Amino acid sequence: MPRIAAFGEVMMRLQVPGVETLAQSSRLEYSFSGSGVNVTAALARYGHNGALITTLPETPVGEAAIAYLRKLGVDTSLIRRGGKHLGMYFLENGFGARPGRVTYTDRLGSSFNTAEANQYDMAALASRVDVLHLCGITLAMNDGVRGQMKQLAAEVKRAGGRVVFDCNYRPALWGEEGYAKARPHYEELLALADLVLMNEKDALYILGTAAADYDRITQLKQAIPAVAERFGIRAAAGTHREINADNTHSLTGYLYRQGTFAFSRKLTFPVYDRIGAGDAFASAIIHGELQEYPQQQTVEMAAAAAMLAHTIPGDTALFTESEVLRALSDFTLDVER
Amino acid sequence: MPRIAAFGEVMMRLQVPGVETLAQSSRLEYSFSGSGVNVTAALARYGHNGALITTLPETPVGEAAIAYLRKLGVDTSLIRRGGKHLGMYFLENGFGARPGRVTYTDRLGSSFNTAEANQYDMAALASRVDVLHLCGITLAMNDGVRGQMKQLAAEVKRAGGRVVFDCNYRPALWGEEGYAKARPHYEELLALADLVLMNEKDALYILGTAAADYDRITQLKQAIPAVAERFGIRAAAGTHREINADNTHSLTGYLYRQGTFAFSRKLTFPVYDRIGAGDAFASAIIHGELQEYPQQQTVEMAAAAAMLAHTIPGDTALFTESEVLRALSDFTLDVER
Amino acid sequence: MPRIAAFGEVMMRLQVPGVETLAQSSRLEYSFSGSGVNVTAALARYGHNGALITTLPETPVGEAAIAYLRKLGVDTSLIRRGGKHLGMYFLENGFGARPGRVTYTDRLGSSFNTAEANQYDMAALASRVDVLHLCGITLAMNDGVRGQMKQLAAEVKRAGGRVVFDCNYRPALWGEEGYAKARPHYEELLALADLVLMNEKDALYILGTAAADYDRITQLKQAIPAVAERFGIRAAAGTHREINADNTHSLTGYLYRQGTFAFSRKLTFPVYDRIGAGDAFASAIIHGELQEYPQQQTVEMAAAAAMLAHTIPGDTALFTESEVLRALSDFTLDVER
Amino acid sequence: MPRIAAFGEVMMRLQVPGVETLAQSSRLEYSFSGSGVNVTAALARYGHNGALITTLPETPVGEAAIAYLRKLGVDTSLIRRGGKHLGMYFLENGFGARPGRVTYTDRLGSSFNTAEANQYDMAALASRVDVLHLCGITLAMNDGVRGQMKQLAAEVKRAGGRVVFDCNYRPALWGEEGYAKARPHYEELLALADLVLMNEKDALYILGTAAADYDRITQLKQAIPAVAERFGIRAAAGTHREINADNTHSLTGYLYRQGTFAFSRKLTFPVYDRIGAGDAFASAIIHGELQEYPQQQTVEMAAAAAMLAHTIPGDTALFTESEVLRALSDFTLDVER
Amino acid sequence: MPRIAAFGEVMMRLQVPGVETLAQSSRLEYSFSGSGVNVTAALARYGHNGALITTLPETPVGEAAIAYLRKLGVDTSLIRRGGKHLGMYFLENGFGARPGRVTYTDRLGSSFNTAEANQYDMAALASRVDVLHLCGITLAMNDGVRGQMKQLAAEVKRAGGRVVFDCNYRPALWGEEGYAKARPHYEELLALADLVLMNEKDALYILGTAAADYDRITQLKQAIPAVAERFGIRAAAGTHREINADNTHSLTGYLYRQGTFAFSRKLTFPVYDRIGAGDAFASAIIHGELQEYPQQQTVEMAAAAAMLAHTIPGDTALFTESEVLRALSDFTLDVER
Amino acid sequence: MPRIAAFGEVMMRLQVPGVETLAQSSRLEYSFSGSGVNVTAALARYGHNGALITTLPETPVGEAAIAYLRKLGVDTSLIRRGGKHLGMYFLENGFGARPGRVTYTDRLGSSFNTAEANQYDMAALASRVDVLHLCGITLAMNDGVRGQMKQLAAEVKRAGGRVVFDCNYRPALWGEEGYAKARPHYEELLALADLVLMNEKDALYILGTAAADYDRITQLKQAIPAVAERFGIRAAAGTHREINADNTHSLTGYLYRQGTFAFSRKLTFPVYDRIGAGDAFASAIIHGELQEYPQQQTVEMAAAAAMLAHTIPGDTALFTESEVLRALSDFTLDVER
Repeated sequence: MPRIAAFGEVMMRLQVPGVETLAQSSRLEYSFSGSGVNVTAALARYGHNGALITTLPETPVGEAAIAYLRKLGVDTSLIRRGGKHLGMYFLENGFGARPGRVTYTDRLGSSFNTAEANQYDMAALASRVDVLHLCGITLAMNDGVRGQMKQLAAEVKRAGGRVVFDCNYRPALWGEEGYAKARPHYEELLALADLVLMNEKDALYILGTAAADYDRITQLKQAIPAVAERFGIRAAAGTHREINADNTHSLTGYLYRQGTFAFSRKLTFPVYDRIGAGDAFASAIIHGELQEYPQQQTVEMAAAAAMLAHTIPGDTALFTESEVLRALSDFTLDVER
Repeated sequence: MPRIAAFGEVMMRLQVPGVETLAQSSRLEYSFSGSGVNVTAALARYGHNGALITTLPETPVGEAAIAYLRKLGVDTSLIRRGGKHLGMYFLENGFGARPGRVTYTDRLGSSFNTAEANQYDMAALASRVDVLHLCGITLAMNDGVRGQMKQLAAEVKRAGGRVVFDCNYRPALWGEEGYAKARPHYEELLALADLVLMNEKDALYILGTAAADYDRITQLKQAIPAVAERFGIRAAAGTHREINADNTHSLTGYLYRQGTFAFSRKLTFPVYDRIGAGDAFASAIIHGELQEYPQQQTVEMAAAAAMLAHTIPGDTALFTESEVLRALSDFTLDVER
Repeated sequence: MPRIAAFGEVMMRLQVPGVETLAQSSRLEYSFSGSGVNVTAALARYGHNGALITTLPETPVGEAAIAYLRKLGVDTSLIRRGGKHLGMYFLENGFGARPGRVTYTDRLGSSFNTAEANQYDMAALASRVDVLHLCGITLAMNDGVRGQMKQLAAEVKRAGGRVVFDCNYRPALWGEEGYAKARPHYEELLALADLVLMNEKDALYILGTAAADYDRITQLKQAIPAVAERFGIRAAAGTHREINADNTHSLTGYLYRQGTFAFSRKLTFPVYDRIGAGDAFASAIIHGELQEYPQQQTVEMAAAAAMLAHTIPGDTALFTESEVLRALSDFTLDVER
Repeated sequence: MPRIAAFGEVMMRLQVPGVETLAQSSRLEYSFSGSGVNVTAALARYGHNGALITTLPETPVGEAAIAYLRKLGVDTSLIRRGGKHLGMYFLENGFGARPGRVTYTDRLGSSFNTAEANQYDMAALASRVDVLHLCGITLAMNDGVRGQMKQLAAEVKRAGGRVVFDCNYRPALWGEEGYAKARPHYEELLALADLVLMNEKDALYILGTAAADYDRITQLKQAIPAVAERFGIRAAAGTHREINADNTHSLTGYLYRQGTFAFSRKLTFPVYDRIGAGDAFASAIIHGELQEYPQQQTVEMAAAAAMLAHTIPGDTALFTESEVLRALSDFTLDVER
Repeated sequence: MPRIAAFGEVMMRLQVPGVETLAQSSRLEYSFSGSGVNVTAALARYGHNGALITTLPETPVGEAAIAYLRKLGVDTSLIRRGGKHLGMYFLENGFGARPGRVTYTDRLGSSFNTAEANQYDMAALASRVDVLHLCGITLAMNDGVRGQMKQLAAEVKRAGGRVVFDCNYRPALWGEEGYAKARPHYEELLALADLVLMNEKDALYILGTAAADYDRITQLKQAIPAVAERFGIRAAAGTHREINADNTHSLTGYLYRQGTFAFSRKLTFPVYDRIGAGDAFASAIIHGELQEYPQQQTVEMAAAAAMLAHTIPGDTALFTESEVLRALSDFTLDVER
Repeated sequence: MPRIAAFGEVMMRLQVPGVETLAQSSRLEYSFSGSGVNVTAALARYGHNGALITTLPETPVGEAAIAYLRKLGVDTSLIRRGGKHLGMYFLENGFGARPGRVTYTDRLGSSFNTAEANQYDMAALASRVDVLHLCGITLAMNDGVRGQMKQLAAEVKRAGGRVVFDCNYRPALWGEEGYAKARPHYEELLALADLVLMNEKDALYILGTAAADYDRITQLKQAIPAVAERFGIRAAAGTHREINADNTHSLTGYLYRQGTFAFSRKLTFPVYDRIGAGDAFASAIIHGELQEYPQQQTVEMAAAAAMLAHTIPGDTALFTESEVLRALSDFTLDVER
């Protein structure tokens, strides 16, 4: 099976168990995650070789991260070691009217964000990769990392590989200038991408068009094809989420390919841990596209994979294709009854 | 009772429970500590008002630190809030032939180490402080912090207060230049200090004299009085530690005052957690000096306080004067039998 | 009060705490259970002497099982020791769209399932038992255990005692032949039983009649009396469960006795741990029959006992009669409002 | 800001983690609470100086209580030490149809309940207090404590301070005589109080009028003004709670002041830990009154504070004013959508 | 085998896990113990029927105590229910120079200590008991309990049973009058006792003789026979403990019977939990006397049982006779090498 | 680097945390281990490709085992899936005079022990392996497994690889016939082996010679060369362990190669977890031989690796070569002082 690599940061997640706050508790549970981690781990469960390209420090914390990635089934042979720190964040669970809270430590000083471009052998990496996954959060870090993303994507294309780009535009990470600062970088990556994860907001930003007063679906159907055409993108996908009054969430997935939209059924379910659900959706879309599944099958499977990702502690979804299909069919039966 | 303030950093201690490594475990226990925390908390147990002067971020992590300090009995009213991060370190316990390990995160980017001098009202702070505690580890941080230490010490002296300085010279923190870089800063602080925690190595560094081939006690008796005379220091104190073949440690305390040395009995004991024992010793010396206890009584009590600090989880000793005296007398009885 | 004995296997339940999977976690919580354990423990709470007849290994695992049974209040004086192993199963909790999972270890090699008939003194056991409880899961094990069940039931009848049989037909345990293989064994036990736990599916299997296209209640009202008449069964009981859209469950109990059906109100409630609820229902039916409570009172109480069994961690319900009655009356009041 | 003191008992709360019973588990989590603790800790979060007046034993348990109070931000400088014990209670969580259970140990023998009046210097305490909080549960303890409450309230009034009284009439604590025994004590305290927490039941008891067949709001609007007028009370407040079929609760707060009622919107939310919500409401009312916020703003904020108190483990709400306002505005937005 | 009953209190032990103090931790582990619990549980492991005579409250705490006793194998059928509370104590482990601490709650208000004599049917209890165990700690409680002890012991003697009395004189429990107050009660019980656990200090108190300047063994050999003769005691036993410099303990057991002393070898071993070792020794002496083992065999076994009791968490030793014998023989081999 | 494969069983280790027994506790910690796991994981840390050849069930337990092996760094690509169970054992820690206990579940029914020879493609496996590790414990299982070991070893030799055999003769596993039954199988494997782990007892068994009355070193020097010559073994190695009075252990390693013995210094150290130390020694010997280190260097390093293996929870040593060398040099310095 093809080797899929993600270029991105590994962060240490330090979570207060239960619903206590940091000021109340004295214990933490830790794991390691990141968009690239989630995507390569999920694709490994689908039978692919999922490798991470990143930089981790040569410290006990770096060792712990690598052991954790191995446990997830991520291929760690492309990881370089160097720098001093790992990005970290503290997670306090909310309950009811009390929202959860995330507190970051100094992310920009991490091994990944301070690595220099010449420390990666981009051509050699590209030669070992069939599909490259990149994420808009990484793009927001700094000029060094942005340069590395573009260089690696260009090398992969040159070597005949494919590029997946998850827009994930987060205004807070781009400072006061916002999309004005982000735009040229997004455009460079969209021009290199074959498959893009984006929603109507991403598309409108890219097109520079204000959101019209239409509903989301109409906006989606207008903006996504326009973006795809402008940048020569083969396929685009994403989800719409609703949060219901009874604390359940509803998800609908969509997959646009060569002029046609496919929408999954709307899935409604309770939520244990929401983080990483978008990566689970993206992973299943990548899997479906690589397997050349029918468009409808791929989007249904991806929505079910995203739903399952809400049911498991930690950021990283750990489901085989057959588990995803079973969740989908159980759900369907339940609805039909 | 007088208000004793320490100027220093609060760090978050993230410890793997038991003897697993970070790569084996998935749980951490956290607390907050630092030399200033340990000293003010210990002095609070002796009945003084112990306040910390520091900067903590306005985040849930900063809130947790303040709540923890309050629990220790530290007066938190002089703490300013600002900056982004808290310094952190991971602690893995060793066992037998396997040494424990400490891994720091980015300490220089902490709220304390990035605060600017004009963010503290030095004169106002000095007016509320009778005794100021400073530590050589803080002195190693950066020029900003060094300037703040000197400015605050000078203001306290001007306002009629006293200054305690714990040399704590750590070569690794001063880079390649080592003591050549540290010397002018140490000399400035020694000139302001009334009571200094130092051992013969510190004294020889300060004097610029190589260690002669004498035993430690002889070195001590030569170097400490010379340093005290040169810088006008009223009293100096410290400990000698031996690690015994059966994993017990032995401590002997000394207190030099106006030409005379007093030595405690040598105390031998098993060790649960060694971190913070020096601060426990320093705290008891400060307490004894403030109470104007006889020199021998103060040094015996300080050695017993240091011994007790080895018996409790966490960096911070939490013993009242009567508990320290009981440990001292039990120990004595045991020896006499 | 009469001595009630159950003949059946004790299994060790190894549960991953929280909602992690076995591959994510590193901790387990263990307890010991089984249909016979659940029934005798529940009857002990109602004031009866509930004893278990089984075989447990003379190992630390066997010791732990016996200590656990004693804690539950089960009379352990009829347990023989021998063999090598205890049956075990791993339990991973599900969440939302992700189902829970049960993984068995080698059950057929357990001390109970490898014990030989002559290792029990059936006549002596029967002489100490007023009511014997047997379960269809045990019947599915192997010929040895089946023979022991029949022999013990026959001895108890001969000694003037009563036999309770819980059909609990599980197709998966009988292999490809299914009910064809099970039928003669079920018929032998039904002929010996005074009180039978069964639902309409069990009854239709026994009668060899295909399920007609009627609703469940109609099927029940046709099939149960027919079975009771054919085998001379004094009373039969069971529950109907519905799983609601909001994850609550609803239970309705029924008790058939001498030509008349009594139905409990339908109880609707949230679920913590579903395992063992059927045994809680059966226990309360046995208690009501032994106390000769009115038919309606018994079935209402049994439904409330089953409801409570869903609210407690572990397989074994631990409620006194007054706690069951309180739950019933609180529930009733709540409904009436 | 003014110093607010509460006179009341500190109790040790010993809670079985999860939903096991005391007979199933072997672990407890402990904290320290009480009406006065909850109110002063909450007011400290709003920026006031919140001090507790109580008696705690000079034992390790007493030390632990004081450390816990300090962590909460309670000013512990008015606490006296003496007596032998701390009141304690065990808490077992319920689930669904199984109610939670509270088991008290010997409360009347506690340091607080056995302290004698002359052990407090009432005049000195009163001179350091701007607002005094008292609670009807304390009033139910014994004659000694009742006398201390009245004496301290009178001293505070004499010194120009204000008195807040939370009726909290619990019939079970007053024995067979019930309100007949309680009445004279309630009347004395109401005569001293400026702000009273009470609902229509409390008011009807006080007025000696049977509940008419009106709805709760009508009863409230008739009885509260009558009580306020009779006893010269400046303001009165409380909440109405509804428990909904889906296990959510709904709260509506009211604040009566100078002839006018203000009602908060009805807030509906899931519940993690209900204990202490009334104290959170009372604290926000006190804060609003001290800040002289508009009546409607105070009651809305107090209802939101009570709602948040249901979302956090432990009895004591730990929210800043801005967190309360955010919960209120998020809730409002959510409702408007 | 004979039924051995102990009359005594059950206490709840609330232990801080690890070596943290109550002020540092937030978790407790609980169990239930007492001299009578320890002795009857140990004798149950030796194959006897060990029953406890006590009073426990009808609360969830009382339920938990009974379930725990059942798990230990104690016969709970002679326990009566009533009163309100259970005696409790908090246990903080020490380490090295820091001693462990025990903090009691209100013991005198416990169900056991407030039960009245007419609530036990002494004659009926005595008729079901072959050997009665009593302890000097119980004797120190109050006049009510003292009267019950004497009445029950007298009834057991009348019914032909034997009485074991463990002197366990604790000066702190008898107040200022000390042994002057205790003497008449000790004399009454010694006159009823067949087997007495005592050491030379107990014997000298009883004889009213000051400790001569002899070594412990000489004192023992003089005082024990004198006491035995005066009160007609058939056998007496006890241990001498030494605490060694390396934190190991050494125990030597002795058993006096009809004019002859037997001493065990001195056993030296590390200590996990010291509480309950004396009860383990007493239990093995009782077992040896009931089995009529040779005097030397009994005292060796009892010393080994006491040694093993130091190796297990909790107060109650849980070892079979064969485990004790194995520890003894392993130890012996080790010594002989 | 060469690929080293071990053929052997993976077992699930279920350990009671702390020093409680299975009957006292309710929690377990689990991990996965086995001689082959330990050796391949250790060699992976030394930079080799360490792969395991085994059979694991396709169940959640099997998934957890594979994830755990991946975390250890073991190459899992040669593992086949099938069968039903995993061998398991319970581990209770001892303390002082109380020995630890191991209780096995049904090992012979495990996936590994019930796999059939034709389910492995022996030739294909051999073609991917440079060094094969086999263990005498596996040889004791059953004829099927024995046949697979021999077949695989023969194929590896045919393909030009090397075979390492760890004698590990455990009399208890071979039943009443003992070495008479084991001999032909040992001889077949010794004839195929290049490097053998054995001690003087193993060698004497193999030679069929009774242990003479010589000391262990003399026996070793006589028997090992004789065995090596008879079976054409290139190198042999092992350790001598002493257990000291203060609970420390001492290890001396030896390595025999082409007529010459090298002995390590005797290392003395405290012990946390003894299981797996032999595998750590074997792994370092294999590494040294593959790297063609000097004989003395290899045996010193292997002894230090075995020492370190005693300091870490779990069976599997996780140390890099530089960590082993540091432990060796620290130890040496310590001794030289």
